[in-house]
Amino acid sequence: MSLRGVHSVLVTPFASDESLDERSLRRLVDFYASRGVDGVVVLGVLGEADRLSDEERERVVAIAVDHAAGRLSVTVGITHNATRIAAERARAAERAGAAAVMASPPQRSAPSREHFMAILEGVALPLVVQDYPENSGVRLGVDFLASLGDVVVKLEDPPSPCKIAALRAAAPALSILGGLGGIALLEELEAGADGTMTGFAFPEMLVEIVHAHLGADASRARRAFEHALPLIAFEAQPGVGVALRKEVLRRRGAIADATVRAPARQLDATTLAGLDRLLASVEATVC
Amino acid sequence: MSLRGVHSVLVTPFASDESLDERSLRRLVDFYASRGVDGVVVLGVLGEADRLSDEERERVVAIAVDHAAGRLSVTVGITHNATRIAAERARAAERAGAAAVMASPPQRSAPSREHFMAILEGVALPLVVQDYPENSGVRLGVDFLASLGDVVVKLEDPPSPCKIAALRAAAPALSILGGLGGIALLEELEAGADGTMTGFAFPEMLVEIVHAHLGADASRARRAFEHALPLIAFEAQPGVGVALRKEVLRRRGAIADATVRAPARQLDATTLAGLDRLLASVEATVC
Amino acid sequence: MSLRGVHSVLVTPFASDESLDERSLRRLVDFYASRGVDGVVVLGVLGEADRLSDEERERVVAIAVDHAAGRLSVTVGITHNATRIAAERARAAERAGAAAVMASPPQRSAPSREHFMAILEGVALPLVVQDYPENSGVRLGVDFLASLGDVVVKLEDPPSPCKIAALRAAAPALSILGGLGGIALLEELEAGADGTMTGFAFPEMLVEIVHAHLGADASRARRAFEHALPLIAFEAQPGVGVALRKEVLRRRGAIADATVRAPARQLDATTLAGLDRLLASVEATVC
Amino acid sequence: MSLRGVHSVLVTPFASDESLDERSLRRLVDFYASRGVDGVVVLGVLGEADRLSDEERERVVAIAVDHAAGRLSVTVGITHNATRIAAERARAAERAGAAAVMASPPQRSAPSREHFMAILEGVALPLVVQDYPENSGVRLGVDFLASLGDVVVKLEDPPSPCKIAALRAAAPALSILGGLGGIALLEELEAGADGTMTGFAFPEMLVEIVHAHLGADASRARRAFEHALPLIAFEAQPGVGVALRKEVLRRRGAIADATVRAPARQLDATTLAGLDRLLASVEATVC
Repeated sequence: MSLRGVHSVLVTPFASDESLDERSLRRLVDFYASRGVDGVVVLGVLGEADRLSDEERERVVAIAVDHAAGRLSVTVGITHNATRIAAERARAAERAGAAAVMASPPQRSAPSREHFMAILEGVALPLVVQDYPENSGVRLGVDFLASLGDVVVKLEDPPSPCKIAALRAAAPALSILGGLGGIALLEELEAGADGTMTGFAFPEMLVEIVHAHLGADASRARRAFEHALPLIAFEAQPGVGVALRKEVLRRRGAIADATVRAPARQLDATTLAGLDRLLASVEATVC
Repeated sequence: MSLRGVHSVLVTPFASDESLDERSLRRLVDFYASRGVDGVVVLGVLGEADRLSDEERERVVAIAVDHAAGRLSVTVGITHNATRIAAERARAAERAGAAAVMASPPQRSAPSREHFMAILEGVALPLVVQDYPENSGVRLGVDFLASLGDVVVKLEDPPSPCKIAALRAAAPALSILGGLGGIALLEELEAGADGTMTGFAFPEMLVEIVHAHLGADASRARRAFEHALPLIAFEAQPGVGVALRKEVLRRRGAIADATVRAPARQLDATTLAGLDRLLASVEATVC
Repeated sequence: MSLRGVHSVLVTPFASDESLDERSLRRLVDFYASRGVDGVVVLGVLGEADRLSDEERERVVAIAVDHAAGRLSVTVGITHNATRIAAERARAAERAGAAAVMASPPQRSAPSREHFMAILEGVALPLVVQDYPENSGVRLGVDFLASLGDVVVKLEDPPSPCKIAALRAAAPALSILGGLGGIALLEELEAGADGTMTGFAFPEMLVEIVHAHLGADASRARRAFEHALPLIAFEAQPGVGVALRKEVLRRRGAIADATVRAPARQLDATTLAGLDRLLASVEATVC
Repeated sequence: MSLRGVHSVLVTPFASDESLDERSLRRLVDFYASRGVDGVVVLGVLGEADRLSDEERERVVAIAVDHAAGRLSVTVGITHNATRIAAERARAAERAGAAAVMASPPQRSAPSREHFMAILEGVALPLVVQDYPENSGVRLGVDFLASLGDVVVKLEDPPSPCKIAALRAAAPALSILGGLGGIALLEELEAGADGTMTGFAFPEMLVEIVHAHLGADASRARRAFEHALPLIAFEAQPGVGVALRKEVLRRRGAIADATVRAPARQLDATTLAGLDRLLASVEATVC
């Protein structure tokens, strides 16, 4: 079971009153479908999954799967602190038509192979194990990840390239994806990653980098990466990533409103002014 | 709006297959009602609230309120990372008959007065603000807490007595409760706490301490506290608190099964053997 | 190589101007020698080792070893973020006459067997490996600790009894000591600990507990533990431990002044009042 | 008192046996002097200050000041967990000829104005307050920083541009420098920073960016920043920054050996291969 290429983590669009904006969610799926990505991911960290109710989660999954309509694979975040609920969410995602499910370890828990095995047991879908210690508070070693067997690893434990290389050596057939907004994508690919799963709001740039790499055109891959890097680094600023990507997606016409749910902070004037200057300077914003 | 006296935080009872054990939940309410506490709290940290689905949460609230039947006040935990959902949960708790709601700040967030104000706005119930930085990752200063106005503070930021004294000085009329398993209860009361809200599985001992204190019988309060302390310190061991309290409550006949939801760990043999020795040595276990 | 029994971690006495109070340090060594402990430890966490200069560290070691004069073993804390400097400190401690050295892993580092082996290589003394993740930010697994070979483990990763039992099973001959202010000493001994190494300011109570345990008098051990527990729990309050123990030691005549080095906080009035009440109620304060 | 422009944080060069390489330290000072920076900083995080002995620290300061010989200002890191020792270090740095001193708050401490005031009191030098919560574990608010009066703030609390703008608004005359390897330098300057104090191993690129900005040539500043960004992002990878910068400086002839002190990790093969590819592709490496 594997995932390859570019999988874009979606924001969850809200109206200005913070209610779920289902229409924008459909538009967002269209946006990514038109940018050539291989799949999308709903209910990830960028999707403010921890700021949704269970009912809203179900709506997001149903809409994304329905609207993707086979154009894109849909991976569904199922992270939960209880194994039992994570496994239930995985089964529900499968019933809803998801192509894969994604789980981080429970917050600040000891690494538990049983947790991931219990999720896998109930579904026939690929399981993406998200290794993102800054967010989960959990360190998953290379040995632990390799022991999980036939899963996909979304590796976001920087410096990611050397951990990807170590994991690739330990598990040659494993499907490994980078993340972290793409900040190390070029090196992740060189280190053996099969693609990336991240929320960078210029997905066509990720596609270009990955395609060039797969086509063994290292210098084109580097040019594409360096072209994208000012945007990647800007979006990857800690603490404003969700608000910033929503604003970029709004400007690109992919969603109607950039609202994030409180108490997460909205974009400040300084960051907005920086975004204005950056977009004005980047050709790629002509979209 | 105030809460005083002893409010016992409930475990959420599960059958051995980890399903919600509704019958034990009712028995648990009876258990606390018979021990003379002023209220119970569902969906707190001890209640494994973060290992339940939204649907299970609603069941727990409905059963607790229904079965308490006015014998006990029922406080409902509503902590959520989104202000919007926390506020919705508060309103749902009020509709279900809760006596109060309790919220911690969103995980690892900046302290937000707006978050708590938005919750308060939608309900006529007392709001318990849980100040437990080890769990939430958020430090709430005395000034911040005092600025919240008419709330109840469950103060679990050790050393708790001096923070309680400072908060009492800053907000003389505020309702302040201790917690932390009761490990500093005597000093918390001396520092100005109005009671305690915690999950210690021998609630009658907390009642005895608080009553002696309110009756201005300092030496009886100290004797009662020191009598309880071996049990309090044993239960308060980090990392095994939920499993240990479930086991004590099972032995006391309050619930049928001590199962905690994976991947939380069950009790190890060493801790169980220690519990056996401790209970054998304590008169209070004759119950 | 082993350590057994009660090893008391010393505060570093300061005059009111925060200068090293060498006279009080000598008095402190006499105090512990007269209480029947097996050894003392200088430059531990309680000794404010991270608030001393290298030169002051050397003075503390020289005075403690000289004044102990063979009455007590002196263990010297050598924790440093560089392996090279920790090893140098170990050799200097040996030259100065230390009986053992003690090292925590470097702050927030990955567990490194090489680090501890490099320290061991240069000295013929026992090495105490301090396993105190709340302070070091490093989790050392049972397998890691057992792999270190002939060291002493000061195990302060709560719940400590079950980890001590697991480590005892993995390394039957290893010397294992508890710590954590003695809050779980009784259970640590039952789980297989060889004693305790901690800073509780009533060391004669620890001696009584350990002796009763070694004499296989479980009920006397329990009585002694429960007698000490109000003091143990009070001293173990997070954030005020150093200041509180200095104040107790000052009242017991062991040091002249309770000053801690800024910016660590001095004792607040609430905690002091609690200490007054507690000491007034405890026979053991008649000393 | 102010610092402006580009201040380069120095590595501490070691020979392959981890001993201080004084000759390379002199060469390193020459390297930076020839790159047009305004000053250098010794004993910062990048300088492995926490892996040096007090004696080594003194040597580093003496050599850097002596060899700079007025060509460059030398700022000396004095961070220590005790106010008393930090203040002593500041006075010693002044006696040794430092141009400024730099202090982070004590590890995981509550923000203490007194700490910084006590340092300032004893010296006539500018004090750089390093605001780097990921390293110190301490969050310093804008109000706190503004309250410190006439200091220099090295602001490394991302997203840094909006905090710089807020601090600039609160303290118009304050000297504020960016850091974080330069990853947000362009936006930091636009937000009001007076320069940067960081360890990026291509300091001439930082000089170019800052000069273009000061010359009000925004498009040249952006081009210079985007030209540097692949190197900046690569060097800023968490966990390998020190080793990577030492390797770059070795390749550029600035130091003889890239050794970092154990247990810090040396560069892995994957990162080295990435560095080879990156340097091969960047004109700037022709140096």
